[in-house]
Amino acid sequence: METKFQYFAQFAKGNRWSTFDNLTSLIMQSLVHLGGINAGQDHVAADSTQESSSPKKKVVILGTGWAGMSFLKNLDSKLYDVRIVSPRNYFVFTPLLPSVTVGTVEARSITEPIRRIIRKKEAQFHEAECIKIDVDKKQITCKDVSDITFKGKEEFDLPYDYLVIAVGATSNTFGTKGVMEYCHFLKDIEDAERIREHIINCFETASLPHLSSEERRKLLNFVVVGGGPTGVEFSAELHDLVHEDLLCLYPHLKDNVKITLVQSGDHILNTFDRRISQFAEKKFSRDGVHVKIGCRVLEVTDEYIRFKAKDTGKLVDVPYGMIVWSTGISTRPVIADFMKQIGQEKHRVLATDEWLRVKNCEGVYALGDCASIEQRKIVEDIAYIFKQADKDNNSLLSAAEFVETMEEVRLRYPQIDLYMDHKHMKGVIGLLDEALNSGDQDNAQLDLEHFSAAMSKVDSLMKCMPATAQVAAQQGTYLAHSFNHIARHKPAEGPKRIRAEGRHRFNPFCYRHLGQFAPLGGEQAAAELPGDWVSIGRSTMWLWYSVYASKQVSWRTRALVMFDWTKRFVFGRDSSRM
Amino acid sequence: METKFQYFAQFAKGNRWSTFDNLTSLIMQSLVHLGGINAGQDHVAADSTQESSSPKKKVVILGTGWAGMSFLKNLDSKLYDVRIVSPRNYFVFTPLLPSVTVGTVEARSITEPIRRIIRKKEAQFHEAECIKIDVDKKQITCKDVSDITFKGKEEFDLPYDYLVIAVGATSNTFGTKGVMEYCHFLKDIEDAERIREHIINCFETASLPHLSSEERRKLLNFVVVGGGPTGVEFSAELHDLVHEDLLCLYPHLKDNVKITLVQSGDHILNTFDRRISQFAEKKFSRDGVHVKIGCRVLEVTDEYIRFKAKDTGKLVDVPYGMIVWSTGISTRPVIADFMKQIGQEKHRVLATDEWLRVKNCEGVYALGDCASIEQRKIVEDIAYIFKQADKDNNSLLSAAEFVETMEEVRLRYPQIDLYMDHKHMKGVIGLLDEALNSGDQDNAQLDLEHFSAAMSKVDSLMKCMPATAQVAAQQGTYLAHSFNHIARHKPAEGPKRIRAEGRHRFNPFCYRHLGQFAPLGGEQAAAELPGDWVSIGRSTMWLWYSVYASKQVSWRTRALVMFDWTKRFVFGRDSSRM
Repeated sequence: METKFQYFAQFAKGNRWSTFDNLTSLIMQSLVHLGGINAGQDHVAADSTQESSSPKKKVVILGTGWAGMSFLKNLDSKLYDVRIVSPRNYFVFTPLLPSVTVGTVEARSITEPIRRIIRKKEAQFHEAECIKIDVDKKQITCKDVSDITFKGKEEFDLPYDYLVIAVGATSNTFGTKGVMEYCHFLKDIEDAERIREHIINCFETASLPHLSSEERRKLLNFVVVGGGPTGVEFSAELHDLVHEDLLCLYPHLKDNVKITLVQSGDHILNTFDRRISQFAEKKFSRDGVHVKIGCRVLEVTDEYIRFKAKDTGKLVDVPYGMIVWSTGISTRPVIADFMKQIGQEKHRVLATDEWLRVKNCEGVYALGDCASIEQRKIVEDIAYIFKQADKDNNSLLSAAEFVETMEEVRLRYPQIDLYMDHKHMKGVIGLLDEALNSGDQDNAQLDLEHFSAAMSKVDSLMKCMPATAQVAAQQGTYLAHSFNHIARHKPAEGPKRIRAEGRHRFNPFCYRHLGQFAPLGGEQAAAELPGDWVSIGRSTMWLWYSVYASKQVSWRTRALVMFDWTKRFVFGRDSSRM
Repeated sequence: METKFQYFAQFAKGNRWSTFDNLTSLIMQSLVHLGGINAGQDHVAADSTQESSSPKKKVVILGTGWAGMSFLKNLDSKLYDVRIVSPRNYFVFTPLLPSVTVGTVEARSITEPIRRIIRKKEAQFHEAECIKIDVDKKQITCKDVSDITFKGKEEFDLPYDYLVIAVGATSNTFGTKGVMEYCHFLKDIEDAERIREHIINCFETASLPHLSSEERRKLLNFVVVGGGPTGVEFSAELHDLVHEDLLCLYPHLKDNVKITLVQSGDHILNTFDRRISQFAEKKFSRDGVHVKIGCRVLEVTDEYIRFKAKDTGKLVDVPYGMIVWSTGISTRPVIADFMKQIGQEKHRVLATDEWLRVKNCEGVYALGDCASIEQRKIVEDIAYIFKQADKDNNSLLSAAEFVETMEEVRLRYPQIDLYMDHKHMKGVIGLLDEALNSGDQDNAQLDLEHFSAAMSKVDSLMKCMPATAQVAAQQGTYLAHSFNHIARHKPAEGPKRIRAEGRHRFNPFCYRHLGQFAPLGGEQAAAELPGDWVSIGRSTMWLWYSVYASKQVSWRTRALVMFDWTKRFVFGRDSSRM
């Protein structure tokens, strides 16, 4: 894989658009080492053997998305009796879903059958949907999703010792009327294919001879709700499809197509660096993609979509041909039921601790979009930490005491590292400087009150992890490591316990953000890269191609995706309606 | 294209399986010149210009299958106001449909958007279904097929001067109970994709842990009804899919899979040479594909399919996981209605004359699977022919009189050429020999009675053309030539009229059978080739690959199909259920 990257890096270097030549290869090297789920890498230790003659513990994995697959790939399946349950017998490389909606890549090029992934593993896959989790009996109930079940045999139970919930999430309509009925979503392969068909339907119906030009304009008004990465990428892909391919085939519709991107916030791509969202807005305005910021969707009917402009309060009804709703995520029904069962009904998603264990629920783990880590605040344990640190019991921490303790404590509270990164601190001593509000470390005398104030500042920066493939994949890898560790009876490797004796078995999960991409159409992309680098333009698009090709789950999908890109360059996108 | 063929020919020559080396390149050369609808060929004369200032005649083409596309490709669209109406905005290379059912090639690789085909033509396409033909008003009524129509605007009318009906056919259940509800058909892309999904569904459901082995066996019992080329090719592809790909991923189901091919006749492939059908039967029996010959399907329920063995009369009920019904064709509802309107309700399909004109219906033409030519018998005109031939009015034909007339008459009655081919005659003189029952041509004295007897023998060999892509494509090319001819006001080029003065405008349509292929799985195929050659084996499969690649409708689909074949060799077929 290194070799291929070097090739891409060289390519980018020789490229006349390249704006950050030296950076490119650096980044690629760092990206190669992402905790992804490449087929080439087998994280399972080669020397692993089943170390106990007792029956293997049953691990049931729900879901075949990023979290589930990353867990499965990294789990030493010889150590457990592994079952995977999912209504989808394939893994989807979701970051390329917007490309599938317009045919830049084909649906089957970004999916890999689960049974191929587990071919060399001791694991069983069942294509079924989990409809009930029974924590008392430690079993789940599953339902066959095909339409060829036998009467009275639609459901079956599976017992578990460990349950790994990685079922992902559904779209969130925020209760907006009509969204469920009239909007398209962009969560799964079927969604993408439905959108693809619908776009062509709009163009074909608009080409019928008996329509008025007003009706044509309505059919060709495409509305995208949500200015996040998915919404923006879909708008860009749709714009490319229309202008690079469809208008050559439907030249009579040239003046009727309109693409509108609706964002409730003040900017699109608002999780990205300000420069990126500005660039994206400018590019869209140049391309003729209408960006409506500060607009909230109130209602959708079969005729129009109703917005409210936040600043003026004015209501606008816009007729549409297609709406793609790409904002917000929501819990799946089975998880909502489960949350009620375990007293988490007030949470947005399943709450876990830092080790991905579902709270108050023995043997159940949750990761990916269906779960959220409730990170323990440092201030909750502040008295215990202070007491541990204060070796000489003088109720004041010296610099040495502070550093010694904090080096241990930062393992337990990942927010410390995030905070230090954010503030560009070189070590925990920076925290002391900040707490003391001075650089005089030699005479440092930190009392509980100031210590607590400093730590609550650290806690305040804590936020939920984004619902991205990156987080899910890292969580899967992390959890698999934990499972392998337990089954191999290895000693605890976590940080010291704060309130009790001994050590935690593992370090808590710590998310490493490795950057993010936003393709903007017309062979341009924007990227946030490790080390606060921002990169925009054509060379970034090439970086995007190389990173996304390298991150494919198998050599098969890698070859297919690269062929699809080539095909698009040579022949354009297909406009058959199927 | 020639170059590519030479390459394939060389390849086949170097190939150790090759059994008919010298033949291969010969055949390829002949096949390159088939009257197909290659994108590379543009049959429209380059010098054509609109020769009249009067408004162009309106030609409406119904259907985008082989017949419609071949007509469209060869029509000089500058000469007419051309509209194409079809519920499908793409052309399908139907001979590869069985490959799509198992993922050997992808659906989009064998389809070409109509709008790409007509990009350089002056033609308009409407994605709609023709639901009514009004011959009095000379207009058709069409219905939008998308789900996004405007209220009250679901239908529209189109006037025509010439209507070209090429809508193809649907499957024929022969009134067998349950077939419509429980069987899959194999006529269109959607059918193929449904079959593909259903096969994987059967394997996935059979892998669920709570089923009995009897239930598993039921799910994995695949029944194919119809031993024609499609049924045989599908069975072969299914066998390859199961044994080359699926059983590696579902090894636990190894002993449960069964493929049964049901044929009502005494042999499968009974339109092929006897050697081919014997080879196919032996190969299937070796591969474990169960061939049930002489079996009629009486009924299908959700539980079983009921056969009756013709010889014993025994009824057998067989539980099944999937049935593919690939036998018989039937008229589409709109054509059935139209046939009633023009008094053809007793016909199986639309009856046309030898010039593809629908009988008793001014300006309407029909071709492809929805039509059948009612070839005029020679004996119907025998008195006129005899009178024309008998120049010296002695009520006897000399050899010279016979030959002179028959050379003209064979153009009017294509069955004469077919008969001569069949009997390996070198010229019409052979017919005379046969009629006289002697070789003594010098003293030939043929009377009306013997002449009539000889011609009725010729008529007796006449049969309907098969419902194949080859016939449809040749008809399309033929009709386009006629249309171009008329619009350019060229003189009549047909044979002399028999009952009236002057000449027919064109020769009647004459079908040239160029051979047929039957892929049998495991990289083996059988072929009937021009000149009564039969070829069987691996080299035939390579011939099949090269012919089917060359016959693709565009360079795009050619590249895609060849990539799909390569992909299958390298990575196998995809088993994702979508």
